[in-house]
Amino acid sequence: MIKVGVVGATGYAGAELVRLLAGHPEVEIAVLTSQSYAGQKMWEVFPHLYGIVDKTLETLNIPELMARCEVIFTALPHGHAMTVGQEVMRRGRRLIDLGADFRLKDVDVYQSWYKTEHTAAVLVASAVYGLPELYREDIKDSVIVANPGCYPTSAILGLAPLLANKLIDTDTVIIDSKSGVSGAGRGLSLKTHFSETTENFQAYGVATHRHTPEIEQELSALAGVPVVVNFTPHLTPMVRGILSTMYAKLSVDLNVQELTDIYRSFYQNERFIRVLPPGRYPTTKGVAGSNYCDLSVTVDPRTKRVIVLAAIDNLLKGAAGQAVQNLNVMYGLPEDTGLNFAGMYP
Amino acid sequence: MIKVGVVGATGYAGAELVRLLAGHPEVEIAVLTSQSYAGQKMWEVFPHLYGIVDKTLETLNIPELMARCEVIFTALPHGHAMTVGQEVMRRGRRLIDLGADFRLKDVDVYQSWYKTEHTAAVLVASAVYGLPELYREDIKDSVIVANPGCYPTSAILGLAPLLANKLIDTDTVIIDSKSGVSGAGRGLSLKTHFSETTENFQAYGVATHRHTPEIEQELSALAGVPVVVNFTPHLTPMVRGILSTMYAKLSVDLNVQELTDIYRSFYQNERFIRVLPPGRYPTTKGVAGSNYCDLSVTVDPRTKRVIVLAAIDNLLKGAAGQAVQNLNVMYGLPEDTGLNFAGMYP
Amino acid sequence: MIKVGVVGATGYAGAELVRLLAGHPEVEIAVLTSQSYAGQKMWEVFPHLYGIVDKTLETLNIPELMARCEVIFTALPHGHAMTVGQEVMRRGRRLIDLGADFRLKDVDVYQSWYKTEHTAAVLVASAVYGLPELYREDIKDSVIVANPGCYPTSAILGLAPLLANKLIDTDTVIIDSKSGVSGAGRGLSLKTHFSETTENFQAYGVATHRHTPEIEQELSALAGVPVVVNFTPHLTPMVRGILSTMYAKLSVDLNVQELTDIYRSFYQNERFIRVLPPGRYPTTKGVAGSNYCDLSVTVDPRTKRVIVLAAIDNLLKGAAGQAVQNLNVMYGLPEDTGLNFAGMYP
Amino acid sequence: MIKVGVVGATGYAGAELVRLLAGHPEVEIAVLTSQSYAGQKMWEVFPHLYGIVDKTLETLNIPELMARCEVIFTALPHGHAMTVGQEVMRRGRRLIDLGADFRLKDVDVYQSWYKTEHTAAVLVASAVYGLPELYREDIKDSVIVANPGCYPTSAILGLAPLLANKLIDTDTVIIDSKSGVSGAGRGLSLKTHFSETTENFQAYGVATHRHTPEIEQELSALAGVPVVVNFTPHLTPMVRGILSTMYAKLSVDLNVQELTDIYRSFYQNERFIRVLPPGRYPTTKGVAGSNYCDLSVTVDPRTKRVIVLAAIDNLLKGAAGQAVQNLNVMYGLPEDTGLNFAGMYP
Repeated sequence: MIKVGVVGATGYAGAELVRLLAGHPEVEIAVLTSQSYAGQKMWEVFPHLYGIVDKTLETLNIPELMARCEVIFTALPHGHAMTVGQEVMRRGRRLIDLGADFRLKDVDVYQSWYKTEHTAAVLVASAVYGLPELYREDIKDSVIVANPGCYPTSAILGLAPLLANKLIDTDTVIIDSKSGVSGAGRGLSLKTHFSETTENFQAYGVATHRHTPEIEQELSALAGVPVVVNFTPHLTPMVRGILSTMYAKLSVDLNVQELTDIYRSFYQNERFIRVLPPGRYPTTKGVAGSNYCDLSVTVDPRTKRVIVLAAIDNLLKGAAGQAVQNLNVMYGLPEDTGLNFAGMYP
Repeated sequence: MIKVGVVGATGYAGAELVRLLAGHPEVEIAVLTSQSYAGQKMWEVFPHLYGIVDKTLETLNIPELMARCEVIFTALPHGHAMTVGQEVMRRGRRLIDLGADFRLKDVDVYQSWYKTEHTAAVLVASAVYGLPELYREDIKDSVIVANPGCYPTSAILGLAPLLANKLIDTDTVIIDSKSGVSGAGRGLSLKTHFSETTENFQAYGVATHRHTPEIEQELSALAGVPVVVNFTPHLTPMVRGILSTMYAKLSVDLNVQELTDIYRSFYQNERFIRVLPPGRYPTTKGVAGSNYCDLSVTVDPRTKRVIVLAAIDNLLKGAAGQAVQNLNVMYGLPEDTGLNFAGMYP
Repeated sequence: MIKVGVVGATGYAGAELVRLLAGHPEVEIAVLTSQSYAGQKMWEVFPHLYGIVDKTLETLNIPELMARCEVIFTALPHGHAMTVGQEVMRRGRRLIDLGADFRLKDVDVYQSWYKTEHTAAVLVASAVYGLPELYREDIKDSVIVANPGCYPTSAILGLAPLLANKLIDTDTVIIDSKSGVSGAGRGLSLKTHFSETTENFQAYGVATHRHTPEIEQELSALAGVPVVVNFTPHLTPMVRGILSTMYAKLSVDLNVQELTDIYRSFYQNERFIRVLPPGRYPTTKGVAGSNYCDLSVTVDPRTKRVIVLAAIDNLLKGAAGQAVQNLNVMYGLPEDTGLNFAGMYP
Repeated sequence: MIKVGVVGATGYAGAELVRLLAGHPEVEIAVLTSQSYAGQKMWEVFPHLYGIVDKTLETLNIPELMARCEVIFTALPHGHAMTVGQEVMRRGRRLIDLGADFRLKDVDVYQSWYKTEHTAAVLVASAVYGLPELYREDIKDSVIVANPGCYPTSAILGLAPLLANKLIDTDTVIIDSKSGVSGAGRGLSLKTHFSETTENFQAYGVATHRHTPEIEQELSALAGVPVVVNFTPHLTPMVRGILSTMYAKLSVDLNVQELTDIYRSFYQNERFIRVLPPGRYPTTKGVAGSNYCDLSVTVDPRTKRVIVLAAIDNLLKGAAGQAVQNLNVMYGLPEDTGLNFAGMYP
């Protein structure tokens, strides 16, 4: 059994991770920490875990954590995983960080978008971007995995086949994303207050959202040239799910079936990518509660643009599910260990 | 492997059952039937099953069904499982009926509330009411299991300890139930049309709902005397979940802790019943996606009434989950085989 | 023009009141106060009022308020309207309090349920309970109107014809109420956090909710004997609306049509009460955005219980709309001045 | 009083129109027709109108309609207003068509996108596109007003200042729109079935939606050159509201404040357009229940793209509200007669 700890177990990504780890046959949950709820049982905070997870939440104590766990998951606001990362490195443990601290290879870019000093810059170089579909081999031997952001997961998986195959004009990429409210976390705010959010649809962080440089870093790596995009996130009155609608000018002449075949070929043997047949579009309900990313491509012959749709559950493939997938890759387990279930519908 | 067939696989209860059976380690899905979608793949109707269930939906052909399955699940409107039941009996198969046809022991009561002639009255006597917490031993050897209705499951589990222990005045029972919209099925109607249902809360079937005699039959059996209740169902703007709020006059003097202890004792060792500590109330979100029934008891000393709250996921403990639990009982499997997961939260 | 002030303009009841007053032809809004947003424009806090209400929010300054307004509306947490009430009395102004401070005639009962000392007990005797359908004449000449709570409005209007006509056993009254989340206000809490509340249904304050003594006071007054009830509020995943389902044993033999006629007679000429024909039930969507209270009665001959359903918009007939109706009564205006509109559907 | 008839009064746009007309001080509702509900009272179909609209729904009888009404509103599926239009012309009445039959100037384009023969092509030339902000003078004297589609209203109002002032590259326009479910009407379908739609977000009609040519016709007229766009509609789990997110390459160097000023100048004196200050974004809740269109502009200096956000209530400014605004323009009434109210929030 792999002994794991979850630091930040009472945010939504953390709690979803605990639920998944509790059902993972090769994992033993050794430590759960929470700043707000230390001393309480996990189930007192999350009633669905009553009778399932009996552990008491602890205050974060890094030496203890290192002593009791092989693998540490951090699900913390940005800036807080750096210290844990340093200790993990020193003590020969492994880290899967669900936050942003190790995702951006260029520390200046991190500091400029996150307005935070990076105190563990030396670790960034060795961290692996935890998107198994692109970096599986690197993840196997990694010490620090930077689990991707929810929006970037949908955008990168959606655009990778186009960029890797050089099928689009890289100056024309627009990513219009819509997320359920759980992506905004469990912290209280008017933006996530029921009466303000229900029956409401709105954009936020227009042209300024922090996932932009993460998306651009990975798209640029795929394209081999710098890619700058417009990314607009929107808040949707539902709990789970991201749908990203992506637009780009095709630089070659391809029809829908040909593009679908390219996508299927690019993602063949990928356990969690489902490329839908032409004419079917992904829906967030079709992936909710599962680790799948559903994809479709459409071509508009009038404008020569391709429209890509990508749907994920932001808490699964966009956070905790992907973290477990990364754990499985790191330990050579079948990639769907503990993730081998359909979503919930309706 | 147990070869099973699902008749009516494309209603919500049927589809949920298919999802559960697809993840059940001892089951092989042999036949899926659908009147509306025969000839299509299951995943074409339910996108969450893409890549998971590859079977094609068939028209119901009873001899074929009997030939290819050991156990048949029927998830049909009332009146349609009778014929299947007769054939099951004749051919030595086993039936778990998620509909109403075999629930009421008194065929006249069935005919009066359902306005339908019962053509298999002889089978009713041998059918077992499929609430494992009350009829586990009978279910083991049963040929026909009448899987309980969703509302009755919540009401009976909520009131059983009071009636079995003769703690309340049986003339004072009021059951005020609130259900998510999936309980109304996948058939189209204005009552389940998004724009009519969202941001709306309403009662329906006041004093006339067909689950009333089913509840009364089981409460009477528990009490040893006839129990007549008021049962009011309400439609709640959410997909999954039932919360039943139940009121009765206490005939003995007990406080909340004593009542909670009685409930815990009554349900000790029950895998899917969680009696909450005093002061905590069940929520539908706390059980959504799981097979649990969460219960709480409160006493109002001002009125000497007990208020019981019971929450279930109507598609799991209220339908498909309970059906799988019954299958496990019938085959001597651990009762949570294929059901051993926490709900999804948030 | 009647010069009015709204103290606590940025809670949901306060903001709804501002919207209504802005459209009232006989009213001039003179002062809007807000503790949290003083110094900002009202529309900066409530975007729907952009271009409609240009006033800047002020800190509460009681002498200023008295100087600039004839009528003061207070929409504050309990305990905060007492001081305003004293000053109103001293300065010859009039007060409509949307909070609880002047609703309970028995100050001890107030102190026991609200755990707050009442510092203006002397005013309580002269305050009028602001339910125009019951106290219209008293409201006309009142100085302080205690605008009813949202739950009590639905419960009292629903049960008044039964109690006033002595048709039920007063020991058997059960009130099971379901409210939209706006009733919990604009203050942040996990209970009103979108991801916790959507797709969730739950009871709260079981046997302890503070609206209980208010309901009992008015039902007792109607019955002429003390009435003690069970009242259970529930949180429903929608913004607006209350549906109360009420149960009582009939003490006389009446059928549905006779009871409906009694209700129609009791509420004849009432502008905002709609007694539905037998067989139709009120829905929250049918009253949302309007000042109506929709009512229906059903009789269960099996149990001799009457089931009454009452639906209101908690922010209109349950708060701000009723406050405007009271203002109209106080000034001898047609009762629907500024309230003469249908609700919004769907 | 203007005598009006509503043909198709029981769809959502029709019913919203009836609600607005019932509150319009210069209008008398003379005829309401409905194919599905003829013979019933309007309030039997729409409970919010109980006690407000007492009219009985009639079968459509065109001669009667002409005899009893001055102005006819048609709220019908495409193809059904043509006959009414011909009769209106012949009989000297006036028509406001909420459907698509008279919107497209090029009958071939209509026939190609709507797959329907146009049988009243001669009327199309004289019909005026009913967007008062662009065609106010023409509407005044019009006989047939083609009330714009909901999506086009948001897109055209959002992009008009950019195109009229030649500020963008017309080849780069992308319109990503999100609509509440009421836009899909009252007809039953799985796409609008509560359990399929709640907690779901999905695109539809990708690159093929029929509002595309309508948008392009008007954008081309504004630009003076043909404009071809990508338009993607999405279904959002809420009842009311459209938010359109629009992208285009700026062809001139302008910052956010300069662009906001250009928008404010373009729309000065427009009663129903609110250009928000830089940094504030429109929300659907901010306009729900009102006839406003809220707009914001953002510039991304990294990509030189402008991002325009436009929010409307699809049933008001996107349908019935705009129809009433057109009526007011036709009769020389203040443009907000019967529309002079804030939206409902929350």
